[in-house]
Amino acid sequence: MSQLFQLEKTCPKTGARAGTLTTPHGSVPTPLFVPVGSQGAVKTLTPHDLKSLGAGMVLANAYHLYLRPGIETIRRLGGLHRFMSWDGPILTDSGGFQVFSLGHLRRISDEGALFRSHIDGSEHFLTPELAIEFQEELGADIIMVFDECPPYGDDPERIRRATERSHLWAERCQRRHGREGQALFGIVHGGTFAELRRQSAAFLTSLDLPGYAIGGLSLGEPKELMHSLLDETVPLLPEDRPRYLMGVGSPEDLVECVAHGVDMFDSALPTRLARNGAVFSQDRRHGIGNARFKEEEGSIDPHCDCYTCRNFSAAYLHHLFSCQELLGYRLATIHNLRFIVRLMEQMRQSILDDTFPTFRETFLQRYQPTDADVRAEQKQKWLESRRDRHPLD
Amino acid sequence: MSQLFQLEKTCPKTGARAGTLTTPHGSVPTPLFVPVGSQGAVKTLTPHDLKSLGAGMVLANAYHLYLRPGIETIRRLGGLHRFMSWDGPILTDSGGFQVFSLGHLRRISDEGALFRSHIDGSEHFLTPELAIEFQEELGADIIMVFDECPPYGDDPERIRRATERSHLWAERCQRRHGREGQALFGIVHGGTFAELRRQSAAFLTSLDLPGYAIGGLSLGEPKELMHSLLDETVPLLPEDRPRYLMGVGSPEDLVECVAHGVDMFDSALPTRLARNGAVFSQDRRHGIGNARFKEEEGSIDPHCDCYTCRNFSAAYLHHLFSCQELLGYRLATIHNLRFIVRLMEQMRQSILDDTFPTFRETFLQRYQPTDADVRAEQKQKWLESRRDRHPLD
Repeated sequence: MSQLFQLEKTCPKTGARAGTLTTPHGSVPTPLFVPVGSQGAVKTLTPHDLKSLGAGMVLANAYHLYLRPGIETIRRLGGLHRFMSWDGPILTDSGGFQVFSLGHLRRISDEGALFRSHIDGSEHFLTPELAIEFQEELGADIIMVFDECPPYGDDPERIRRATERSHLWAERCQRRHGREGQALFGIVHGGTFAELRRQSAAFLTSLDLPGYAIGGLSLGEPKELMHSLLDETVPLLPEDRPRYLMGVGSPEDLVECVAHGVDMFDSALPTRLARNGAVFSQDRRHGIGNARFKEEEGSIDPHCDCYTCRNFSAAYLHHLFSCQELLGYRLATIHNLRFIVRLMEQMRQSILDDTFPTFRETFLQRYQPTDADVRAEQKQKWLESRRDRHPLD
Repeated sequence: MSQLFQLEKTCPKTGARAGTLTTPHGSVPTPLFVPVGSQGAVKTLTPHDLKSLGAGMVLANAYHLYLRPGIETIRRLGGLHRFMSWDGPILTDSGGFQVFSLGHLRRISDEGALFRSHIDGSEHFLTPELAIEFQEELGADIIMVFDECPPYGDDPERIRRATERSHLWAERCQRRHGREGQALFGIVHGGTFAELRRQSAAFLTSLDLPGYAIGGLSLGEPKELMHSLLDETVPLLPEDRPRYLMGVGSPEDLVECVAHGVDMFDSALPTRLARNGAVFSQDRRHGIGNARFKEEEGSIDPHCDCYTCRNFSAAYLHHLFSCQELLGYRLATIHNLRFIVRLMEQMRQSILDDTFPTFRETFLQRYQPTDADVRAEQKQKWLESRRDRHPLD
């Protein structure tokens, strides 16, 4: 199991790491960003698009796939890789985060979570054992423990209880898990409380799991607080296991969190922003609907090597968005994901070349999201935890 | 100008023809189906997708592009080919059909058509001269005269007057047209009246244009009537010019109309059906939402060589549509267009091989749309003439 991750280099000044994840469906370099395809598809993109833009691993969600088309259906069709026609590594999330985002539609006990489907209101009971069973049947390369995710700002006592319950559930997940070649990751919780985070890291590492995620962050807390909690948590995680920060995907956060020693990230932010017409550029993100793009002959980002930027003007994208042409959502998605994937590639290279601190500094000086951007991203993050209500959402 | 079309072979039994259209942006074989990208994009597809599925020419609409982003904008950006990043031949429609579909939003005189934008209600006046000017600035390889399109079932006297007006406008278009290497096609009208159709064909051929379209058909009239009107009209058109039947795109219509000697077709039907989950198969079209596809491991059409069928099960498409995943609309579009493009390729080959009558018979025996299919397609055809109200429409 410890063969999953090979640490290749650590930046002596920041803690940033370069490594390789080796799975039954191939090897991928870290730091790694994992695009989100909750329902078994990264919105608007084919596997061919994903390969072309350099994505190495995709994430799907056991909660969504359990409700539609059903785990048993995917198993009968030969598993998730075949269903999606994606032959690279897949990570599945257990569905914990989605179930707990259902608010009044769910009730939690030590045994598990009773919830109503956001699609048809039908009642379901999910336990740690079932979450593992489902993920085994889907056949992902990396799977996640079933955890309880209280929202940011929740009562400290409730967060403490949720963290303890997540620990018990992690143990039950580990006991239930048996599929060969599939790595089960634990998830460190503890809200915004440093002591609780440390306890959670200590407990989970005692389970000797092949990888560790950090959950319950980037939910609206100030960025400085997120960074200081990473400072508390990451050093407690074993050096030879991958560290996965869940739900983080803005360029500036990725650079900062790689500097804190994180190896893997997932987030629907880049793809969701794209569908909302917000495209990354060297300095910040831009609204493609802005009138100044109406006649812009150049690409969205002159430094970008993606299919969109190599072939289309910003004016064309502006036009597609103003007409709500479906092609626009796809071209913007390709661009935003390529931007993020290339950022990860650049960070990796700079770590290997011993130039990461300079890269970080230069990038963060140049890339300056406005306050409005940051607020909009926080709003998008909240949206992520909600059900998908509209196909363009 | 007569270099535009090379007739290679005519089926002696049916009149079906194989030829080549040679334009400044390359040569394409006929019979040819031209996918519709009214707003400068074939919905959901990149130029790369279109090339991969074998599309040779695309259609854009001067009416849509005039309203958004504006003809002048596209001209400044280097013309429509560059704007769309499509280096193959482009055909633009003049916008006549769209303007006349606006119903109470337009008023027609001999001078031209006064209409209100379906987007913002602004008032515009379009004349034959302006329609040519716009299409010259867009820079398409084939452009169309500005015509008046009365609906099926309109008063015979009104249809006669509209046909005469279309003739006058065709002359004005020809007089105005001057762009080198751009072929102006006339459009035969006359509603469902054989004598009027004959007169229209005679008048337009007297203009000695490089190609002739047949307009105002497939608007809800019985299919037998459409065929008999083709019988009246097509033989009057010069043999050495391409014949283009506008707005026809169902598999059975394409086969029948090729047999009547038509060389080119356009229709939004295959792509619009795809977005509505109706996918072509060997026997008829199927609703991908049908429960029997839920666990169908095979592709939509086992005989299909498209990207979708080579990579995904019908069950996966069923899933994407049930979740309204945008990828589903695209995969279905790729399939339907590839189905139609391959059908054109097969017809061409059978014409060259002297086996077209057998191909036609075999195809039409196997491909049997239900009455409900035909009714649904007629409804879709009406929708085509309307503005695009919803991005998935």
